[in-house]
Amino acid sequence: MGEEEEVKLLGTWYSPVVLRAKIALRLKSVDYDYVEEDLFGSKSELLLKSNPVYKKVPVLIHNSKPVCESLNIVEYIDETWNSSGPAILPSHPHDRALARFWSAFVDDKWFPALMAAVVTKSEDAKAKGMEEVEEGLLQLEDAFNALSKGKSFFGGETIGLMDICLGSFLVFLKAREKLKKEKILTELKTPTLYRWANRFLSDEMVKIVVPEIDKVAKFIGEFEDSAQSVASKS
Amino acid sequence: MGEEEEVKLLGTWYSPVVLRAKIALRLKSVDYDYVEEDLFGSKSELLLKSNPVYKKVPVLIHNSKPVCESLNIVEYIDETWNSSGPAILPSHPHDRALARFWSAFVDDKWFPALMAAVVTKSEDAKAKGMEEVEEGLLQLEDAFNALSKGKSFFGGETIGLMDICLGSFLVFLKAREKLKKEKILTELKTPTLYRWANRFLSDEMVKIVVPEIDKVAKFIGEFEDSAQSVASKS
Repeated sequence: MGEEEEVKLLGTWYSPVVLRAKIALRLKSVDYDYVEEDLFGSKSELLLKSNPVYKKVPVLIHNSKPVCESLNIVEYIDETWNSSGPAILPSHPHDRALARFWSAFVDDKWFPALMAAVVTKSEDAKAKGMEEVEEGLLQLEDAFNALSKGKSFFGGETIGLMDICLGSFLVFLKAREKLKKEKILTELKTPTLYRWANRFLSDEMVKIVVPEIDKVAKFIGEFEDSAQSVASKS
Repeated sequence: MGEEEEVKLLGTWYSPVVLRAKIALRLKSVDYDYVEEDLFGSKSELLLKSNPVYKKVPVLIHNSKPVCESLNIVEYIDETWNSSGPAILPSHPHDRALARFWSAFVDDKWFPALMAAVVTKSEDAKAKGMEEVEEGLLQLEDAFNALSKGKSFFGGETIGLMDICLGSFLVFLKAREKLKKEKILTELKTPTLYRWANRFLSDEMVKIVVPEIDKVAKFIGEFEDSAQSVASKS
């Protein structure tokens, strides 16, 4: 990376999708300025200008040019600093297509199902939602076997796109386990994925940037309390 | 492409997202077998086996390996037949990130807004929805100016990812114009995008694979009639 490079990341400390950008930057040993956004207060002018369509974090700003959407940012980082650190996308087009397919599955199907099951007040809807989440985990366990080819990560020997994508949500799962004593990812049902999760969270590159589980659990707890208090007043 | 290559596309003739795969294969001069699926009847064993997660078209099967999801397929085609025809993704990482960002915008935000506005029975919801669709078109007009850099297509001199992504929906827009006499993309509001649309649909590579507007209009009309008749019976 040349002297003149300017890299800035707009994020919030607790966001799983911001964590994706942080992990990718760490894997590629990219130095950057981090700007914490206050999404509950007022968003910065820089954020509004850099991501006028969604006004969301993360935004990566590289030499004044913004890149939005977390998986898009991870691919951008991989392509831009392609000679530094391990490749985040596999080299073969079919493996790349699989990594992109399963990452989209996590973002478009599995995590939305989890969020819907978590927030619903109906016990029936929650039970049905959690069934879908569990079915998704079984599909992801199969995907792990197909992508990892017997190695440690979805990306093979090293952390790849799909590890970053699914791995970024592990903090949320662990925080909910602490808070609600409900286990979502279990050794019994998806043993391979369970072991992968521990391996991912113990990785040196990940440990450096992952927020503390206790702090995230406290944050989620307070957020849910305030949401409930708003709901009961309305 | 070697003699031993086997390329198969599972699709339906009227599907805009299947059209994406067809355009990409044409741009790269790839010979393939096309299999028409009957989504209203029973899906083929091959489709269910190749796309067990979504059971949807398009699916590209290359040497027995399936690739699912239309934009994923287009990227796969670009990467696999990278020395044949024009590059579908731009070469610079930032331009690639922009093409991916706006393609995701079309699929996740703009087209769903259009579909919601089209199917709703409430006049209020329709008016509000069409406002969102028009605002999206203004954003896409800006995106065209940023991506095309004064050239003919989002992809510059040649058709790229974003041309294929948004262009695939033009048949649907034209068919609705015929059917309902409502214009969605107009010269008055988004002149640059309007001219791009005509240029895209007149392109030789596109014309070869695009379904007939009249046939699509008839299909949509019949589909809506049968949906209404089902709704009135229930």
